[in-house]
Amino acid sequence: MLSKFFVKDHVKSALMEDIGFGDVTTESIVTEDEIFNAKLVSRCEGIICGLEVFKTVYEVLSDKVEVELLFKDGDKIKKGDVLAKLTGAGKYLLLGERVSLNYIQRMSGIATETHKYQQAIGDLPCKIVDTRKTTPNFRAFEKYAVKTGGGALHRFNLSDCAMIKDNHIQVAGSISNAVRLVKENLSHAHKIELECDTLEQVKEALPLGVDIIMLDNMSLDTMKEAVKIINKQAIVEASGNVNLDTVREIAQCGVDIISSSAIVAKAPTLDIGLDM
Amino acid sequence: MLSKFFVKDHVKSALMEDIGFGDVTTESIVTEDEIFNAKLVSRCEGIICGLEVFKTVYEVLSDKVEVELLFKDGDKIKKGDVLAKLTGAGKYLLLGERVSLNYIQRMSGIATETHKYQQAIGDLPCKIVDTRKTTPNFRAFEKYAVKTGGGALHRFNLSDCAMIKDNHIQVAGSISNAVRLVKENLSHAHKIELECDTLEQVKEALPLGVDIIMLDNMSLDTMKEAVKIINKQAIVEASGNVNLDTVREIAQCGVDIISSSAIVAKAPTLDIGLDM
Amino acid sequence: MLSKFFVKDHVKSALMEDIGFGDVTTESIVTEDEIFNAKLVSRCEGIICGLEVFKTVYEVLSDKVEVELLFKDGDKIKKGDVLAKLTGAGKYLLLGERVSLNYIQRMSGIATETHKYQQAIGDLPCKIVDTRKTTPNFRAFEKYAVKTGGGALHRFNLSDCAMIKDNHIQVAGSISNAVRLVKENLSHAHKIELECDTLEQVKEALPLGVDIIMLDNMSLDTMKEAVKIINKQAIVEASGNVNLDTVREIAQCGVDIISSSAIVAKAPTLDIGLDM
Amino acid sequence: MLSKFFVKDHVKSALMEDIGFGDVTTESIVTEDEIFNAKLVSRCEGIICGLEVFKTVYEVLSDKVEVELLFKDGDKIKKGDVLAKLTGAGKYLLLGERVSLNYIQRMSGIATETHKYQQAIGDLPCKIVDTRKTTPNFRAFEKYAVKTGGGALHRFNLSDCAMIKDNHIQVAGSISNAVRLVKENLSHAHKIELECDTLEQVKEALPLGVDIIMLDNMSLDTMKEAVKIINKQAIVEASGNVNLDTVREIAQCGVDIISSSAIVAKAPTLDIGLDM
Amino acid sequence: MLSKFFVKDHVKSALMEDIGFGDVTTESIVTEDEIFNAKLVSRCEGIICGLEVFKTVYEVLSDKVEVELLFKDGDKIKKGDVLAKLTGAGKYLLLGERVSLNYIQRMSGIATETHKYQQAIGDLPCKIVDTRKTTPNFRAFEKYAVKTGGGALHRFNLSDCAMIKDNHIQVAGSISNAVRLVKENLSHAHKIELECDTLEQVKEALPLGVDIIMLDNMSLDTMKEAVKIINKQAIVEASGNVNLDTVREIAQCGVDIISSSAIVAKAPTLDIGLDM
Amino acid sequence: MLSKFFVKDHVKSALMEDIGFGDVTTESIVTEDEIFNAKLVSRCEGIICGLEVFKTVYEVLSDKVEVELLFKDGDKIKKGDVLAKLTGAGKYLLLGERVSLNYIQRMSGIATETHKYQQAIGDLPCKIVDTRKTTPNFRAFEKYAVKTGGGALHRFNLSDCAMIKDNHIQVAGSISNAVRLVKENLSHAHKIELECDTLEQVKEALPLGVDIIMLDNMSLDTMKEAVKIINKQAIVEASGNVNLDTVREIAQCGVDIISSSAIVAKAPTLDIGLDM
Repeated sequence: MLSKFFVKDHVKSALMEDIGFGDVTTESIVTEDEIFNAKLVSRCEGIICGLEVFKTVYEVLSDKVEVELLFKDGDKIKKGDVLAKLTGAGKYLLLGERVSLNYIQRMSGIATETHKYQQAIGDLPCKIVDTRKTTPNFRAFEKYAVKTGGGALHRFNLSDCAMIKDNHIQVAGSISNAVRLVKENLSHAHKIELECDTLEQVKEALPLGVDIIMLDNMSLDTMKEAVKIINKQAIVEASGNVNLDTVREIAQCGVDIISSSAIVAKAPTLDIGLDM
Repeated sequence: MLSKFFVKDHVKSALMEDIGFGDVTTESIVTEDEIFNAKLVSRCEGIICGLEVFKTVYEVLSDKVEVELLFKDGDKIKKGDVLAKLTGAGKYLLLGERVSLNYIQRMSGIATETHKYQQAIGDLPCKIVDTRKTTPNFRAFEKYAVKTGGGALHRFNLSDCAMIKDNHIQVAGSISNAVRLVKENLSHAHKIELECDTLEQVKEALPLGVDIIMLDNMSLDTMKEAVKIINKQAIVEASGNVNLDTVREIAQCGVDIISSSAIVAKAPTLDIGLDM
Repeated sequence: MLSKFFVKDHVKSALMEDIGFGDVTTESIVTEDEIFNAKLVSRCEGIICGLEVFKTVYEVLSDKVEVELLFKDGDKIKKGDVLAKLTGAGKYLLLGERVSLNYIQRMSGIATETHKYQQAIGDLPCKIVDTRKTTPNFRAFEKYAVKTGGGALHRFNLSDCAMIKDNHIQVAGSISNAVRLVKENLSHAHKIELECDTLEQVKEALPLGVDIIMLDNMSLDTMKEAVKIINKQAIVEASGNVNLDTVREIAQCGVDIISSSAIVAKAPTLDIGLDM
Repeated sequence: MLSKFFVKDHVKSALMEDIGFGDVTTESIVTEDEIFNAKLVSRCEGIICGLEVFKTVYEVLSDKVEVELLFKDGDKIKKGDVLAKLTGAGKYLLLGERVSLNYIQRMSGIATETHKYQQAIGDLPCKIVDTRKTTPNFRAFEKYAVKTGGGALHRFNLSDCAMIKDNHIQVAGSISNAVRLVKENLSHAHKIELECDTLEQVKEALPLGVDIIMLDNMSLDTMKEAVKIINKQAIVEASGNVNLDTVREIAQCGVDIISSSAIVAKAPTLDIGLDM
Repeated sequence: MLSKFFVKDHVKSALMEDIGFGDVTTESIVTEDEIFNAKLVSRCEGIICGLEVFKTVYEVLSDKVEVELLFKDGDKIKKGDVLAKLTGAGKYLLLGERVSLNYIQRMSGIATETHKYQQAIGDLPCKIVDTRKTTPNFRAFEKYAVKTGGGALHRFNLSDCAMIKDNHIQVAGSISNAVRLVKENLSHAHKIELECDTLEQVKEALPLGVDIIMLDNMSLDTMKEAVKIINKQAIVEASGNVNLDTVREIAQCGVDIISSSAIVAKAPTLDIGLDM
Repeated sequence: MLSKFFVKDHVKSALMEDIGFGDVTTESIVTEDEIFNAKLVSRCEGIICGLEVFKTVYEVLSDKVEVELLFKDGDKIKKGDVLAKLTGAGKYLLLGERVSLNYIQRMSGIATETHKYQQAIGDLPCKIVDTRKTTPNFRAFEKYAVKTGGGALHRFNLSDCAMIKDNHIQVAGSISNAVRLVKENLSHAHKIELECDTLEQVKEALPLGVDIIMLDNMSLDTMKEAVKIINKQAIVEASGNVNLDTVREIAQCGVDIISSSAIVAKAPTLDIGLDM
């Protein structure tokens, strides 16, 4: 999902942002000949994510740093785990430290948060998925982290799945009009999802043959009722009021998918450090 | 701090990320002739930040949308406040909704978090500042949000202030060597900050004439002692274990600056929505 | 599908390619004060496509040219039709002529070719769709042209629909393994298409619940048989040996979709000129 | 003509276009450890072009794929020829397949078409050349293909040769005025070409010392007459109504150069496939 | 020669370079509501060049600044001349001051230097031209300045005119071989220039029909002899030891063109200031 | 200061500028198999600067060229010194020659000029520094050259040090107001510099606690007086009328820093050549 050439360009731009006209401290003190050893160490438990991105930061900076990864993305880590060993020109270890940690701390934070939600759902046949509420120009990294944390993914952007919302219905005049218009225009390779606020809407939608029905901000009881009505004729997605306390009871309503922006937008960064 | 031409390019890239090959739903249903009215509404209280960026999203998309801002960045908002009014081609209102909210929710989240820290410090002569622990390629927006929230800013990147850390000292052999090397190389327009872990280091540093001394992970008592020793001969910055519960007692130690990554890296997004 | 900001950047790059260090002829002869009138004229019949892109070329070049579009994308045009009127600084009319025509001639060529295929299919419930065999970095324009010509679209790229081909099956060991692996990994918002070469594969695939079955290079009789077997349990797509002579008889096999690279890759440009 | 660094950036962008957020099929099934062998095979006869570009696609994607080229650009190929052998991580072979073929099929199509035209001209001292009617942002690849197919090239863009057309003459008031104005402004390193529609224009142009006279849309007889009048005092270029049936008789008029957009704009792609 | 869209992108990047994370001084003091008047004033005499580029800097920055140009590129200016008047948001006048002056001072410096050389040549039928010794990524601006200063231009880059130098001759084995190889490969739209160090080379070159002969580092007497030998059969360009003292006597040798890197590479910036 | 990834992108763009659609001469004559040896030779004395950038040009072009550097940036060179040896594909040596020299000649020119100024200052405790009067989009290279030549650097851009000028003071109403406003807004990591035209301003400024006082265009006597008044309470920078004749007497006034745009903007390129 994260093509190497895409990551390299993103990293290059992030290094530019952090280095500017040069590291005035390190360049005063550390020559290219100083060899450092460093360890990437976990300072808490969680799900590690972004190790290849972390490594790419040093590849972009210099060919004088070797990074050996000791874990792989998706692994559970605990406090004190050595995640990677770095050897090479100390100058570049110092130059890349902050940016490489910025990637891996954010990505691991999201993976860890996602994992907690999926854990809370437990053995129920239901997946936590992300939304489009992502950090501008950082979405690929965030979606990758959700996947790594054990979640599934919603559509990538506006072009790979139709999602009919209340505004669309209003313009179209009715749910059936909206679905018809989308079906006339949509690629056969794409699905249609319909957002429903009420059971009436669910009933109206069912015969129209949409692929996914999203139950938006419904009570648990209403959701259960909706799942019964839909009866496997569409994938059922729940949305709204999703948090670690509610996610399992939502799953227990029988929905297939629970979408939540919280796993990305409210995930704290994970504490990972570089010990030199 | 956020140049218009810089914001436009960032927004363009973010829209590309979110729109991809087109909005397959909206393009099926909504023509350019459908006129919508919409309101940007706060769904909780906080500090609003990113209004101009929000507006720029629609400017990049189309010249058929008018955005009237009713608040300005830094204003306190409460639940239900109408922050902006939008009128124009519904197609573009729907196309820009998610990206424009992604900016303003994140930026306002950071401004609000920062404001809480600065409020906690209260009337003490001390400022909360950010760090370089930012989201890759999103730093300018995050720093702007810290400023908007009432915080002050630390250096922008590695090039605008020297910061001597333990690794530098180790390579240089001693604090005095490190400071000397940096002074020989540094622009007269830039400051030197030195990270100290102990009172001994503080004492060693003082006669060397550094501009800022950072007390790293010291206990409150040690910090008080350090402030006394430094005695206004340098700006005193505290770092480590900073959270909403500790920030005031740290400030009470007499430090000038408290730096914390939490105001950016752990700030949840602020709930702001677009009602059409 | 073609966001204005995306088109502008593509056009800017194309103008750079064609103008280089300047138009050494026009700059010698034509000042900014010479006002020209010009007409975009069709020199043959077809489907016009790319009018907004054509206009954008002049918008990028200068604010001294007015372009009035007299037709809209998708309209049938015949020889001699005046498609647009241009007035303004002759210098920019001459500078933009070639690039603006290069876009509209190619796009209209594809729209016209697509239209012929869809016309050949006639009233049968079947759509001609494109493939990923497009010109590198020109796909969005080509897909837009297929749509404009009355065709439908296949997936945009590798990320918005799973397509299981023989190589995937070989690695997975069997069709059912391949489908299972993809289902475990795929977003609920995305479909699965399976390429089948034989009726045996079709039969093996049916119970697995894929969304689309592609009949690859089958004879007409085999396709008819396959359609019968599938019996509306999946969308049926035909591929291979598609040309203007065969497309209707393929459609008559009862398939829902016929995909062909020819409508893009082998479409000649449409003859459209600028008369000053 | 195709600098490696230029090709790499073009390829990177084309891969982004085709891969998007990742290959959802391949990533589900094929790990980096699956080793594939593949052959690039010609499915018809023609002139091969774009082998180095083809190879570059895999270099950009990964360092885990080896591509051995068995032919070189410009070689005649026949159905069944193995043009290259690929070995390496199957994941990347599948990821790069479509984009690498999109380049080589288009480039070889143009080279093959050009070759047919030059073959038709046969032993006459006359070259087929391209025009500026190219695909936006793909010109360098198309011109390289014309060259590879045995054609010669016209100017690259508006800046490397002056070309005086009817509009220029109209603004200047006369051919002699137009030529004078261009000569005053033009670099001594650049040539002047003049487009002539009639023999009168040819006669008017001759004493002015232009380097190239283009005979635009003249009958064969008029062209012969023009060639006689020009009598080696300028390079003679013919344009208009050029196709495989007419190109030799145009050459027989004694012109030095025949320019045609058809060799690029109307060349069908060449059928080349990747067998794994 | 300087396309608006090209200049805008160059300016945007230059502003990014100079503004970084914002103007920490101006943003502290000057609001968007402060209206300034400013004058662009010449502080010495010379040839003004870059006025449109100067204006573009403010257009990129803001729509709150009006720039009225009172001179046009190529005009002679003297100390105290008011070249342009600016009115608008003081914030943006201050933000753009340095970058806008950096362009116009450099460009005017080159135009002025070129003008001195062309003046020194006086009424002789000979033009001073530039070379490819330009500042990386600034060539278009420098060539435009040479043109504005009254000079002519040499080729833009390696692709728009063949230039055979000693290394080429060495590889080819002889001048005639080199010329033959180039002629076989070169577009009919491009010229051939040959560098000659001796009269023997000139004589060897003449019958080969090259367009331009460059006399490289010859004495004045040798040049005169060469001009006689060439006798209008090729354009004659002189190169080497060109400075303000020698340029006229070189021109007096009868050469058509004198090329010199000094007019660009050694031109001091012209003193122009912004008075607020 | 010059990050490798930044230099590579700058070089890539510069090569594009100089190569365009290809080197029509070299590609006609020199194959990839011709091996050349070349030497980078100094043709005068000076300070060499830009060797790594020079080398990067060939790395970007091809992996078939080896560059061995025999000197390092900052070394004094004299006429005839061999600075580097190059071996490899002659085609790429010729393709990269001009661009690689354009970088190193300009950078060495600036380093050499800077060195002359610093030499003129001699043993006085005073440094020559640059200004923001740089070539647009070339600043990093120019600042690096100043550093290499033995100078020190002023702020990089508008964001890393506050500089209060007359316009700011005018808007603020007074020096003290201006300083207060900046202090309220400025990062604790940044310095404040104040431009003073008179001794009165110096006296007004002193108690305000600015870090640097710039004496703008003062006479030598006034400067001496100012240094006395300031009495080590701020860094003292002199600006205006700085040239090789005046720089030592300015330094003798006791100022710490002398800033001059001349070392960049008026430095002639250094004569360095490539002998094949």
